This record gives sequence, structure tokens and C-alpha cells, in this order.
Amino acid sequence: MTFTPTVKKILDYYESDNPGTKANLARILTQGKLGGTGKLIILPVDQGFEHGPARSFAVNPPAYDPHYHYQLAIDAGLSAYAAPLGPLEAGAATFAGQIPTILKVNSSNSWATSIDQAVTGTVDDALRLGCAAIGFTIYPGADQIFDQLEEIREMSAEAKAVGIATVIWSYPRGGNISKAGELALDVGAYAAHIAALAGAHIIKVKLPTDHIEQKEAKPAYEGKDWSSQAERVRHVVQASFNGRRIVVFSGGAAKGADAVYQDARDIRDGGGNGSIIGRNTFQRPREEALAMLDKLVRIYKGEE
Amino acid sequence: MTFTPTVKKILDYYESDNPGTKANLARILTQGKLGGTGKLIILPVDQGFEHGPARSFAVNPPAYDPHYHYQLAIDAGLSAYAAPLGPLEAGAATFAGQIPTILKVNSSNSWATSIDQAVTGTVDDALRLGCAAIGFTIYPGADQIFDQLEEIREMSAEAKAVGIATVIWSYPRGGNISKAGELALDVGAYAAHIAALAGAHIIKVKLPTDHIEQKEAKPAYEGKDWSSQAERVRHVVQASFNGRRIVVFSGGAAKGADAVYQDARDIRDGGGNGSIIGRNTFQRPREEALAMLDKLVRIYKGEE
Amino acid sequence: MTFTPTVKKILDYYESDNPGTKANLARILTQGKLGGTGKLIILPVDQGFEHGPARSFAVNPPAYDPHYHYQLAIDAGLSAYAAPLGPLEAGAATFAGQIPTILKVNSSNSWATSIDQAVTGTVDDALRLGCAAIGFTIYPGADQIFDQLEEIREMSAEAKAVGIATVIWSYPRGGNISKAGELALDVGAYAAHIAALAGAHIIKVKLPTDHIEQKEAKPAYEGKDWSSQAERVRHVVQASFNGRRIVVFSGGAAKGADAVYQDARDIRDGGGNGSIIGRNTFQRPREEALAMLDKLVRIYKGEE
Amino acid sequence: MTFTPTVKKILDYYESDNPGTKANLARILTQGKLGGTGKLIILPVDQGFEHGPARSFAVNPPAYDPHYHYQLAIDAGLSAYAAPLGPLEAGAATFAGQIPTILKVNSSNSWATSIDQAVTGTVDDALRLGCAAIGFTIYPGADQIFDQLEEIREMSAEAKAVGIATVIWSYPRGGNISKAGELALDVGAYAAHIAALAGAHIIKVKLPTDHIEQKEAKPAYEGKDWSSQAERVRHVVQASFNGRRIVVFSGGAAKGADAVYQDARDIRDGGGNGSIIGRNTFQRPREEALAMLDKLVRIYKGEE
Amino acid sequence: MTFTPTVKKILDYYESDNPGTKANLARILTQGKLGGTGKLIILPVDQGFEHGPARSFAVNPPAYDPHYHYQLAIDAGLSAYAAPLGPLEAGAATFAGQIPTILKVNSSNSWATSIDQAVTGTVDDALRLGCAAIGFTIYPGADQIFDQLEEIREMSAEAKAVGIATVIWSYPRGGNISKAGELALDVGAYAAHIAALAGAHIIKVKLPTDHIEQKEAKPAYEGKDWSSQAERVRHVVQASFNGRRIVVFSGGAAKGADAVYQDARDIRDGGGNGSIIGRNTFQRPREEALAMLDKLVRIYKGEE
Repeated sequence: MTFTPTVKKILDYYESDNPGTKANLARILTQGKLGGTGKLIILPVDQGFEHGPARSFAVNPPAYDPHYHYQLAIDAGLSAYAAPLGPLEAGAATFAGQIPTILKVNSSNSWATSIDQAVTGTVDDALRLGCAAIGFTIYPGADQIFDQLEEIREMSAEAKAVGIATVIWSYPRGGNISKAGELALDVGAYAAHIAALAGAHIIKVKLPTDHIEQKEAKPAYEGKDWSSQAERVRHVVQASFNGRRIVVFSGGAAKGADAVYQDARDIRDGGGNGSIIGRNTFQRPREEALAMLDKLVRIYKGEE
Repeated sequence: MTFTPTVKKILDYYESDNPGTKANLARILTQGKLGGTGKLIILPVDQGFEHGPARSFAVNPPAYDPHYHYQLAIDAGLSAYAAPLGPLEAGAATFAGQIPTILKVNSSNSWATSIDQAVTGTVDDALRLGCAAIGFTIYPGADQIFDQLEEIREMSAEAKAVGIATVIWSYPRGGNISKAGELALDVGAYAAHIAALAGAHIIKVKLPTDHIEQKEAKPAYEGKDWSSQAERVRHVVQASFNGRRIVVFSGGAAKGADAVYQDARDIRDGGGNGSIIGRNTFQRPREEALAMLDKLVRIYKGEE
Repeated sequence: MTFTPTVKKILDYYESDNPGTKANLARILTQGKLGGTGKLIILPVDQGFEHGPARSFAVNPPAYDPHYHYQLAIDAGLSAYAAPLGPLEAGAATFAGQIPTILKVNSSNSWATSIDQAVTGTVDDALRLGCAAIGFTIYPGADQIFDQLEEIREMSAEAKAVGIATVIWSYPRGGNISKAGELALDVGAYAAHIAALAGAHIIKVKLPTDHIEQKEAKPAYEGKDWSSQAERVRHVVQASFNGRRIVVFSGGAAKGADAVYQDARDIRDGGGNGSIIGRNTFQRPREEALAMLDKLVRIYKGEE
Repeated sequence: MTFTPTVKKILDYYESDNPGTKANLARILTQGKLGGTGKLIILPVDQGFEHGPARSFAVNPPAYDPHYHYQLAIDAGLSAYAAPLGPLEAGAATFAGQIPTILKVNSSNSWATSIDQAVTGTVDDALRLGCAAIGFTIYPGADQIFDQLEEIREMSAEAKAVGIATVIWSYPRGGNISKAGELALDVGAYAAHIAALAGAHIIKVKLPTDHIEQKEAKPAYEGKDWSSQAERVRHVVQASFNGRRIVVFSGGAAKGADAVYQDARDIRDGGGNGSIIGRNTFQRPREEALAMLDKLVRIYKGEE
Repeated sequence: MTFTPTVKKILDYYESDNPGTKANLARILTQGKLGGTGKLIILPVDQGFEHGPARSFAVNPPAYDPHYHYQLAIDAGLSAYAAPLGPLEAGAATFAGQIPTILKVNSSNSWATSIDQAVTGTVDDALRLGCAAIGFTIYPGADQIFDQLEEIREMSAEAKAVGIATVIWSYPRGGNISKAGELALDVGAYAAHIAALAGAHIIKVKLPTDHIEQKEAKPAYEGKDWSSQAERVRHVVQASFNGRRIVVFSGGAAKGADAVYQDARDIRDGGGNGSIIGRNTFQRPREEALAMLDKLVRIYKGEE
């Protein structure tokens, strides 16, 4: 396979990584319908931990089966499929080699009494299941953020040594951060920056609003109009080492299809690398989800 | 030995496991009177830790002897015998090879001041005692659930590497869960799902009531009649990767024989894999217990 | 050496242990004047940690010297000598091979602000000092009991692997246990049972009173007269895997000689394996202590 | 390369270090425009963690790119460049061998709820990225200082064994230390001394005021006029093993150029080894920063 | 070298130790002017951590230089020099082989908010710096005493395995101990005993007063006149395994020379092994300190 110039340029940004890790990043960047474009769409299915099975799958019962999601990601031509240990174990052999997988190695649940997650998978699990990357959530702002950063440092170092890439979900929450602040532009850019500083290969953040949360940060944002979502995406990309790190944005709760498409256009126009989109696909009937994903692909290709 | 198609199908679900672990799951699925049916009955004797010796055994004094339980499980043709370290050590050589054993590796007691358990056995113990599996209790909802998930992740990873299967007892308790909620349908399905996500081979939960505990989960359960226990069992099985994981149900406190039989019929009819039944057997005289277990076997075989 | 049938029967109970561990149990069971009888008397000297040197030894100043206790245990023909790290280091070479030693690997002190102990010795220490066993205190009922059980699990597993036996001192205390409850029959039997479940070879508990502490346990004790200390001992033995584990009883604070003798007769008549007796010996003048120990030997031999 | 007598004398002070560690200290002491003088200027860029990307870089947007800082340090002829994991990974190959790098291995952030930092890099990271040293922040006075000292002890021991030097940022804060006290002379000298006691090769502290914070320390400072900043620098150097350890001073928040130059003259005149200067350079336009750094070089050379 | 009978007798007390550890104890016992007498004087310089540099050294500025203390101990013909990591690293090569060194492996500071110390050195550090022993402080009575005992158990075990001796500073403090109680006779004897039980080779305690702190200990001290400091020393020696362990006493805060001499005479007459004397020497001018130390040597030799 010859890499496109775009893929080659992105891989060159990861200048400290060994060939194994670069190869796994390349697997994601060359997979599916967006392969070679530098854009990517990832299917994440960790709602079972977060919200429980019925809230996640009752609306579309075939999704109770872990094979459903593998097949959806493959059939939609996505870049990668991300899930916790159990679901990957349940399909790893059947779908081996058909799509890059990301082992989500920590997880929360609806009853959590602290802003934290349990580490429920390891780099060794990722290796034996043939995963291309591990995924880890940090909560900048939470009392536990130091522990979380130390956990991902250890796991990421171990992963890099054996050629596994690292994806960090960076979700500000807790401490002095207000509810509106969780989605604030300054906070989101800071969250992306922390993930980059901590050594992430791929950064996952939420699409930010134009709210500025931190008083001390206000001067740095003054004098510029932040009403454009694409401009806000551009700032988050800037905060991610000026584009030297892949940044994908999550779609949040299930919502109307048009909103999903507009988000993708803004991510694309702002220079973001793509979407990580879960409930908006697996909570729709399969055919409807495939159609939506196909349209998203075309948006990222600049065809819509 | 040639596996029945049912056993073969179940084993195929564990597609990421090594041959050693599959062999141990097969030992349980082919043992005793239910061997080959895909159904199983497990004898668990961890009441000594939970309630102390007199409350557990005074009603049937021969049960003070660890050999009693081994022999009961063997004579009743059960699928496996589960107990903490000490009792297995006390009979491991005498009964070696006669019945698969499950080392219960964590344990609580009547004086516990937190919703937690101590790790009192290890995978190395399971290996030297010839056990087929380790058993571990988690308390979804408790403040300690993250620690518990991390403990079982470590032990389960170690077990899978050396061919030992993992059984998770998933008992919701603590935090914001009400007393009624501990047995709620949504909570029970969630508990089973968490065990599956965490990589359990065999999931042990309690039979749920038709109470729905979580406000956010109510919409997912509306519009369906949950008064049938068999239907509730079916939902728990669905939540366990749509039947890709073995699910057994516990009988709870000692109760009338008819209730025990009805539970088994509901488990069978709902597609559950069987019962894990302790106090309802070893707290009855041996002959009475053997008769009850024989009838349960016939129920699971569809003969009653 | 040919084992007596009694010793052989006891050793057979430890059916999961390797020959090294059995050999060390055999060393204790064949040592001294009670060698071969299945009964044993152990000299424990950990009062220095618990109460300090003056409260322990001022009444009998030669006892400040660690060699004093080794020599007392040897001259009295006892089964074993138990002490913390420092005192064993101070005499290990002089008395090597003359009496089995038990390294007490955790210790408290008079100023402890939690119901816990520090781990002050290791299995490696036991090996280099030629000890036959390690000794470890747990406090069932205390907030720290889970940690304590996890500590002894690790140390005991390590010990069993290298042929060292495990003695557990099981002393209920803390949490919801009343002062009277610490010596209650139900609590004492439960404490012995927990030690057995945790994998102890030798269990050390206090002689229980006829008080029943736990409301839930009362029914299990009703309808039987517990006024006989021998019967209470018999129940504790029953709770220790129906006699499959060695159980020794501690004498408590220094008291009159007649009370000490009566305790021994009750232990003997109830089927207990012997006494672990410290202050009642080393706080008496040496000749008086030797005479008392000789009489205890004769009681356990059934000669008095 | 032949070392200057000054460099040779400084290296001789590190008499317990292996040749690898000495070679890395030598790399820093012989690098750039100040090479050979015994003076040094270090560019630290960890503001992204501390204050977020916009507050750090919006004023000079090219600085969002990690390559910017590498190039600035090289072009200015500085002694070393210090940054967290991610930025070093992003430029390690491009700039390999062009300037000694210091991996800042712990980091805080604006939302920290304790006076502590997360360990976000390791000695293994420093090795694979070709770093000359690790950098670690301690907060003398904070509740967590004991933990911090234990962390740096472990990392420093590991670093010394593989030839990596240790730089300690020693910033008094928390506990009973008043806001003014954080910059007090006695506190700053104490902070430098703690870093030296803990085994640092290079000590980084803030320039102290003439405030004396600790009542017990007042007598030791009486009878001497501390109004001269150069004299205060001299005392900090004295507290750093009488000059046997390299001490550099940080410039603090961005401020006027004249103040920056005066600080450097005082550091030089008081016998300090140099400056560690971040915001005062990268928050200025590149040409302005280069001019400032060039003037600082000339000051340290005694030319201004 | 032929050992004196006194040295040989002391070494024989350490009967569980390997030849390497005995050799290091012998190095201390044969060093300097008191070599061979069984008495010893140790110079400890850990005041920098405890009180900061100015309070420690401003009164005698040459003492800011770590080489000063090495040279003082050598020139005074002392038995050993004890200091934290940094100062030993700063002189280890220059003074290698000239005097036995003790690496003080834990340290507190003036701002400590708990009664504890940070571990700031390791056995590996002691080995690479050529130290004869490690020194560790415990605070019997403090909430952290269990952790401290577990830390020194681990370090001491590691040290003994590689031939390094262990010195325990045992300083009662915290919990229920009153200020007067910190120096009480019963408390001091208990503190020495705990150090001995924990496996110390050399015990360092403070000279006790005749106050008895613990109500329960009073009977053990009644009927004897404790007004003689020599008698109190004798009791502490008795509590240290009846003289089987080396016990040295600290001089406390700087005080008049006569008081220092009288303390030494009492230590000598009570059978103690010597003094550990810091501030009373390095806070005096060098010549004065040398004269004082020479007189102390003569006292221990029985010449004054």
C-alpha cells in the first residue's frame, strides 16, 4: 500500500513513535471509506457501562449483541470500532482483521459516586485481541485528574513500547468547572491540550460552545468572534499542537440527523480530523444508521 | 468426548479464549447429570464467611465438615462446587478430578463496615488446587465498585492467561440504590451487563423483581409487561451479550421447595443457564437435598 | 522417625500442602514432651510489642534477655516458641534446631490508634531464621479486617510455596462487637472459622464464654446448654472444619495456676489441640514456670 | 572537546555520579552561547499544563506549535529546553542532538484541588527521547511534600543509574506558609537546601525577597542587611551546599525587559548559575525574544 | 586486624547476621579513637532537613559545606558520620574509606503537617555510596507508626541481605503521649525495645527523665529510685535485649559543655554504648568542637 501524501504527513507528526505504533495509526487512517483522506469516523460503544443495557439498546434490540456493532462499523466503512473488554472479546476472532479496534480501557457507570473511572482493560488485553489502540477517559477538573493522568501515563508508555496507539477521551468535569463550563471553548481547548501534553496520539473532545469559563482566560479570547463552530473547532485543533495531533469530536446525545451533519461540516471546515459517533448511529435502525454514516463520509470527503 | 451441539455452540461464544480456558468451561458444561445440556447447577458454600459457621451449619451439623459439600455436589451430579480457599484446601486431594471446583477469591463477613470484600484467594491458589474457575463478587452501586472492577480485571487477566475461567457474582448494593432497587429488573440487567463488559465467562445474578429503579431507565422498559419472571430472566440474558455469556441465578435465602422449583422453571423458560444454589440445599438434610437437586435437574432437562 | 497414628491423621488433614509445609507441621507435632500426642503447648513472647518491656519483664528480670525464652521453651519440652523478628534474630543461631520457632510477622503496641498491626517480619525472614511457621494476628470485626485478610493471604501463599506453615491469631475486636462480645461463643467460633477459611494451618483463639453476641446467631445456639467450657471448646473445634485444623487456645492475662490447669483440662476434654501460654509462664520465676508447664503437659497427656 | 576549568570544577562537585550523568551535565554546561562559562539559560515551556494553551500562547500564536520552542532555544543559543512529554515527543526527532532537553516529568493544572502534581513522564521516556535530564517540581510546605520527595527519590535514583541528570523545581507553598512567605529569603534558602539534600544536580528556585517568614529562623538572619538581591542570591547558593550544586532562578510572570535584565545581573553577581526563563521569552514576538535572550547572554558573560 | 574481646563479644550478639553486615558493624566499632572499646561517637547532620540551612549553619558558616562535616568527624576520630542523601553524595568520593558513613534514609522538615518522614534514600544508594549502615527514624505513638515500622522492615530486610547495618532513631511522639512523656523513662525504654524488636542493629534514643508516663507501667517501676541518669540508661540498655543490641543516646539541643560531658559519663556508667552528637559540635567553632569531642572520647575511655 502506498500512503497518500495526507496520511504520510500525519504519520510524520508522530516523530517519536516506533514503527509498530505508526503502523497501527496507519491502519486507522487507511481503513474504510475515508481511508487516505486524513479524516476518520470511529464507532464507540461504551454506553452499556455508562447508562446500562436497556437505556442503550432497547430502542434497537439487535444492538444487544456485540457482533452487531462490529458489523455496523465494517459495513459503514468506518475507520475504527471502540469498545470495552467484554464486547471486543465477544467478537475479536469473528471479525479479526476486518476493522481496527480500540480497547476502551477505563469505564464509569451510572452509580459512580466519584468523577472517575475503573481501569477495566490493559495493554496486554489490547495485544491479545489484536487492537490498534487503547482508549482512556480523563476528567480535567476532577479531584482525581492527577491519578487519571498517572494511570494513562503508565498505560500509554506500555502501549507505545509494544506498538499500540493511545486515544484520550478528555472530558472536563468536576471541581470548579460549572455545567456550562464543561462545554466552554477555553475549557475544551485546554482539555485537548492536556491530552496532547500527556502524549495522546488521537484526542477526543466534545464540540465546544462559545462560552468562556475561566476568568483568567478571557483576555486571550477577546477581540475575536467565536460564534462560528468551525472557528471553535479550529482553535481546538490549534490547541492540539497546532494540528500535529489527530483530533476527533464526539456527537453527544442522540439528536436530529441535520444537526449531526452540520457538526461534521463544521469539524471538517475547522480542520478537525473527524467524528466519534455512537448513540446517533446504533440507536437508529441499522439501515437508517448506514445511510447517516454514508452521508457523513461524503461530508468529510467534501462531497456534501 | 464429543461435545453436544449445545455445548459446542456455547464454547464458540468465548471466541477470544485460549484452549485451556475453553477446556475448563467445557469441564463444567459436561459434568454431572446436566452435562451436555447447556444447563448447569452450581453448589456455592461461602456462607461461613458471610454469616459464620453456626448460622450456616448448625441446622445440619455434618455440613461443618468441608468434605460434606464436595460429596453432596458429586452425589447430586452437579456441574461445579464453589468455595473459599480453606474448604477447597481441605478436600482438594481427596476429591481431585471428581467435580470442577470454583475458588471464591473474595469474601465478606457479618461485621463488614464497608460494602466490599477481601481478596482471600488467588489464581495461583486456583492452579495448585486444580480449580476450573475463580469466582469474584462485585457490588455495582457501591463506593468501592471501581476498586472491585480493577481487582477482578487483574485477577481475570491472570486467570485467562493460565486457562482458568472467571465467574462474576454481580450484586447491586450501596450508593443510591434503594433496598427494593437491589432486586429491580433494570438494576439486575445492568449488573449482568457490567459483569459481561468486564470479561466474565459466567455471570451470577439474583432473580429480579418487576420493579424499575432508575428514573432514566423507565422509558426503556415501558410498554412491555414484566410480570412474568421468565420474561425478566430473558431480559437479563439479553443484557448478557444477547446470550453469548452463561448466566446463572441465585436462589437467595432458604425457602420452600416449591418456590425453588418454580424459580428453576422460570430460569429455564427465560433462557437462563441454570441455578447456583447453596443454603437451600446444604441447610436441608442430605437425603432431602439430594431429592431436591434431582428434581431441579429434571426441571432443567425439561422433564418436569 | 515413625509418626504416631494421631500425628499421621492430623497431617493427612492438610491435604493440599506440599511436603515442606507438612514437615514443618510435623516438627511441631513431634517436638518435646507432647511429641506424637496430637497435643501441643506453644510459648509466645510478643508482650514486648504489646505492653512494652517493663510491664512484660520487670517482674522476672532475666526475661529481658531473648535467650531466656528460647531456653525456657526447650527446658520445658514445649512444642514451639513464637516471637517477633528481633528476639528470634537474637537467638536463632544459638538455639538452631533445638525447638521449632514461629515468627510473629505482625505486631501492635500500646499506643496504636487503630485496631490493626504493623507487618514487622516476612516469609524470607522466617526462612533465613529457620522458622517452622509464621504467625499473624487478624481482628475480625475491625474496620481493617479486609486489609488484614489480604495481608495474610499474600504472606500465607508465599509461606506455603516455600514449606512454611501458617498460624493465625484470630481476635475479634472493633466495629459493632461489644466488649463482652469479644469473648462470646458465637463470635469465637466465627473467628476460628474465618481463620480456617483463610487457609490457616493452626488457629489460635481465646477460650470463649457462654455469651452469644449476634442476634442473628442466637437461634443456632438455642436449645443447648453452653455452660460447660469443654463443650464450648468442642464447638470452636467444630467451627474449625470439624477438627480438620489444629486449634490452640490462649490463656489470657496472668492468673492463678489452678485456673490455668482447669483451662487445659477443658481444652483437652473439648477436643482442642492445646495451649499457647505466655505471660502465665515467663512472668513467673523460672522454676515455678517449669513446674506449671510440666503439669500442663501431664494434663494434656491425660495423666492429671 | 576540552572542558574549561570552570566546567571541570563544577563537574567535579558531582563526585558520586557516574560518567553518563556527568556527560549529560556537561552537555548542558557546554551548550550554546554560554557554553563553558559555568552559566546557563534554560527555556521551560510547561505553561500549557499550568495555565492552558490560550493564556500561554494566544499572545504569540506561532508558539502553539511545539517546534517553535525547540527552534527558539536553539537559535538563541540557550543551554537546554525543558518541556512535558507531549511537546518533546512532537519534536524529538527533528531536533535530535541540536539542544539538550529536560523532560518535565510532573505537572499541575489550573483546576488542581491539591498542592500537588501528576507524574506525567518517566525516566524511560527521557531515555527514548534522548533527554539530558528530568525535571520535577516539589512544594515544600504542602501536605503532599513527603509523597513528592518519595516520588523524586525513586525517579532520581532510576535516572542516576542510567546517566540522566535531575533538576528539581523547589517551590514552597501550602501548609503554614503565608503568601509572602512563598518568596521569603529563609523559605527560599530552605527550599533550595531541601532540593540539594534530596540529591538534585540542578536546583531551580524563585528569586527571594528580603522577607523572613519563620520566627525560629529570624535570629539566624539578624544583623545582616538583606536588601541586596545579589546578597540574597548568594545566600541561596550558600544553602545549596555552599555552591557545590548548580542553582538557577526563575523569572516569574512576564514583566518588563529591564527587570529581567536586572534579575540576571543580580543572579550573576550573587554567584548563581543562571536563569530559567519561559513566559518572558515565548510570550514576546520571536525577534524581540531573541534580542532579550542575547542581552541576557551578554549579562551572564559579564559584558553588560 | 584482630578484634578486641569487647568488639568480638558485641559482634557475637548479632548471631543471625551475615558476614557482610557484621563487617560493617565492625568497621564502626573499630574506627577512630574509640575503636576497639565497644564505645562509639557518631556525628549526625540532618538538621538541614529538620530546621533548614540558616538555623543549622549560620552560627558556623563553614558548616554549609558538606565536606566540613566529613572532615570534622575524621579529624575528631569519631566512629561514624550520618547524613541524608545529598550531603553524602557531595563527599562520598573525596572521603571514601576514611570514615564509616550512615545514610539517613528518611527525613522530616519544619513544615511537616503529620508526624512522619519522607523516605529520601535507599539501600541501593547506601551501597553505591559505600555506606556502612542506613539510619531510619520511627515515631512510636504516632498514627503513622505502623507504616513506619513496615517501611523500615522492608528497608532493613533489603539492607541485611546486602551486608548493610540498620540504625533506628526511635523517638516517641504523637497520639496519646504527652510532651513530658516523650522523654519519660517508661516511654524511652519502650521505644528502645520496639527498635530492638523490629530488628535494629544500633538503637538511638534520647536520654530519658525519671517521669513515668503510662499508668499501666507505673507498677513495674515502683520501689526503685530512678533519680540517677546512669540507672535510667541502664534500664534502657536492659530493654534493648539486656545489652545484646548497641544503644547510643542523643544529646538534644545545643547546650553547655559541662552538661554534655555529664551526659556522656552517665551513658558510660549506665552501660550505654555512646553518643550521637550533632548540633553540640557543628554549631561550635571547629577547634572548640574538636576539643569537646576529644574530651568525650576520654570520658568514654574512662580517662575523665
